[in-house]
Amino acid sequence: MTADLLDGHGSRPVAGIDIGGTKIAVLIVDAVGAVLGRATHTSSVGDQDGAASAIAAALDEALAAAGIRADDLAAVGVGVPGRVDPDRGHVTLAVNLGWNDLALRDELERLIGVPVVIENDARAAAVGLHRRRVGPDGIGPDLAYLAVGTGIAAGLILDGRLHRGARGLAGEIGHVIVDPTGPRCACGQYGCLEAFASGPSIARRARDAGLAAETAKDVYAAAAGGDTRAQALGDDVGRRLAWAVHLLVMTYDVVRVVVGGGVSHAGEPFERPLRLELERLRGASPQAGELVPADIVEVLPPEAEAGAWGAVAMASTDRITTPDRAWARRSEVVRHD
Amino acid sequence: MTADLLDGHGSRPVAGIDIGGTKIAVLIVDAVGAVLGRATHTSSVGDQDGAASAIAAALDEALAAAGIRADDLAAVGVGVPGRVDPDRGHVTLAVNLGWNDLALRDELERLIGVPVVIENDARAAAVGLHRRRVGPDGIGPDLAYLAVGTGIAAGLILDGRLHRGARGLAGEIGHVIVDPTGPRCACGQYGCLEAFASGPSIARRARDAGLAAETAKDVYAAAAGGDTRAQALGDDVGRRLAWAVHLLVMTYDVVRVVVGGGVSHAGEPFERPLRLELERLRGASPQAGELVPADIVEVLPPEAEAGAWGAVAMASTDRITTPDRAWARRSEVVRHD
Repeated sequence: MTADLLDGHGSRPVAGIDIGGTKIAVLIVDAVGAVLGRATHTSSVGDQDGAASAIAAALDEALAAAGIRADDLAAVGVGVPGRVDPDRGHVTLAVNLGWNDLALRDELERLIGVPVVIENDARAAAVGLHRRRVGPDGIGPDLAYLAVGTGIAAGLILDGRLHRGARGLAGEIGHVIVDPTGPRCACGQYGCLEAFASGPSIARRARDAGLAAETAKDVYAAAAGGDTRAQALGDDVGRRLAWAVHLLVMTYDVVRVVVGGGVSHAGEPFERPLRLELERLRGASPQAGELVPADIVEVLPPEAEAGAWGAVAMASTDRITTPDRAWARRSEVVRHD
Repeated sequence: MTADLLDGHGSRPVAGIDIGGTKIAVLIVDAVGAVLGRATHTSSVGDQDGAASAIAAALDEALAAAGIRADDLAAVGVGVPGRVDPDRGHVTLAVNLGWNDLALRDELERLIGVPVVIENDARAAAVGLHRRRVGPDGIGPDLAYLAVGTGIAAGLILDGRLHRGARGLAGEIGHVIVDPTGPRCACGQYGCLEAFASGPSIARRARDAGLAAETAKDVYAAAAGGDTRAQALGDDVGRRLAWAVHLLVMTYDVVRVVVGGGVSHAGEPFERPLRLELERLRGASPQAGELVPADIVEVLPPEAEAGAWGAVAMASTDRITTPDRAWARRSEVVRHD
């Protein structure tokens, strides 16, 4: 972590807030990246009318832990699991939160009184990971962050740039159709990756198999405890996520896939089947052997706090929200580099 | 087409050469994009020892048709179906041609005596399509070109830039695993898209179904003639390619997918099942309805000559081969735009 984390904000601290399907995590970080305070609300953030207040309450708790006031912050970054328009500051659609065209930036700025930057959570996490690790011994200019939680999505850094796509939807691999005969997804399609391997889908599949499981965590705990149905389900999820890692490499040609998100925190029962399937692919195909080496995948430990650090990264640059950025991107001439 | 097609070369003509699995196509184009001559060799280009001579012979035929000599050319662009290192001028690996680390640029420059630029064919085609159409009424800064021929691959223009990936392999969607219980692919994996929907795979699947078919063209001719087995196979291929189009949109968030390559030239029996499946996806999912509208897909007519025009585009810029480009790309700092 270096001082340029707070590029443009001098020496004042920033806050990063990671909104998940089942929790709000807040980090308060100073100018050299030291954590001044943190807070985690494990309840759902709730419907969109009360969302800004719930987020501000979680922030207040972290500010109290840090012993500072909101006024002391240079900026607040917020990562949201859904479609975000960073230029307008709106959450366009967050299916798993039930939000639809929420002007979250303006609402939060009114409540908190400091500049707010919002971004898709997986994308923010990718920027945060990249920024903290880039360099000769670091992660290089190409990176995919694969978030496996209430939903599944990827954040992409390509050639050292955040890739948003034409409509800000790049990396929506949770809705790639992986088996057209598979279960129906919340999006309406059949057999999306998310319908097999998101947290709620893993829990639903476990119940369908007769397991008493409320969450994916319960399923992995049962697998670790020797339950063969839970193990078989974990193996299936691991295979599908291995194919998703392979897909990210084949499409974007990234040389690093970092896996995070709530489901990934189950540890060995989560990681082992994923790695086994990648090993099998490497054995079957010289091409996979070359392109998807074992060290391409990294499963983050929960304490990496990739989402909250990603939100911190969003708060640490004011370039993201320059009003004419979208226009600048659109009007760029072709550069073949 | 504008004069900047020949940016850097003044008013001299260029040649574009498209190497396919079963043919070599050559275009000679003047400074305002008018075709001066063309040639198509329908035989395979052959093994790598004789490849440069075979390509030079096809070029000679087109030069004769144009009434000019090789010396009159500013440059020659070559699109190759395989892994290409444009900086070194090598074809690293072209499985469907049987080439392995061929120094094609240097060999051709020795034979022809003018500068040669080589690039992956799908990538070259994407650049050519983008450059000819960009503008207020044109194709915009985001485009995928999906080549369906002897192999399957995509060329990507993202935010107005050619996306090569960390190792020059971005867009290798022919080797995305679409059904792990599917047939074995030449790459060693099971159930790659290419093992279902490339030209040779379509022909092989037809023969497995008892049809007398040498090529995918035969299969589509039989489908057009009412053969129900050929129609069922064409429907399956169309569905799989629709999912591939959907995949390109979900991963890269492009707003245009242009489909070309030899298999796509079968016309209505090729295009109809692809469009039907996309229509079905739109009906099932509001998200697909929004993100994959009917007009996102364009199937090129054979006379578009996307491969040869892509090779022309490669010949029309000398920026591609600047020796320090790879370094420049690698050392770029993070820019979040």
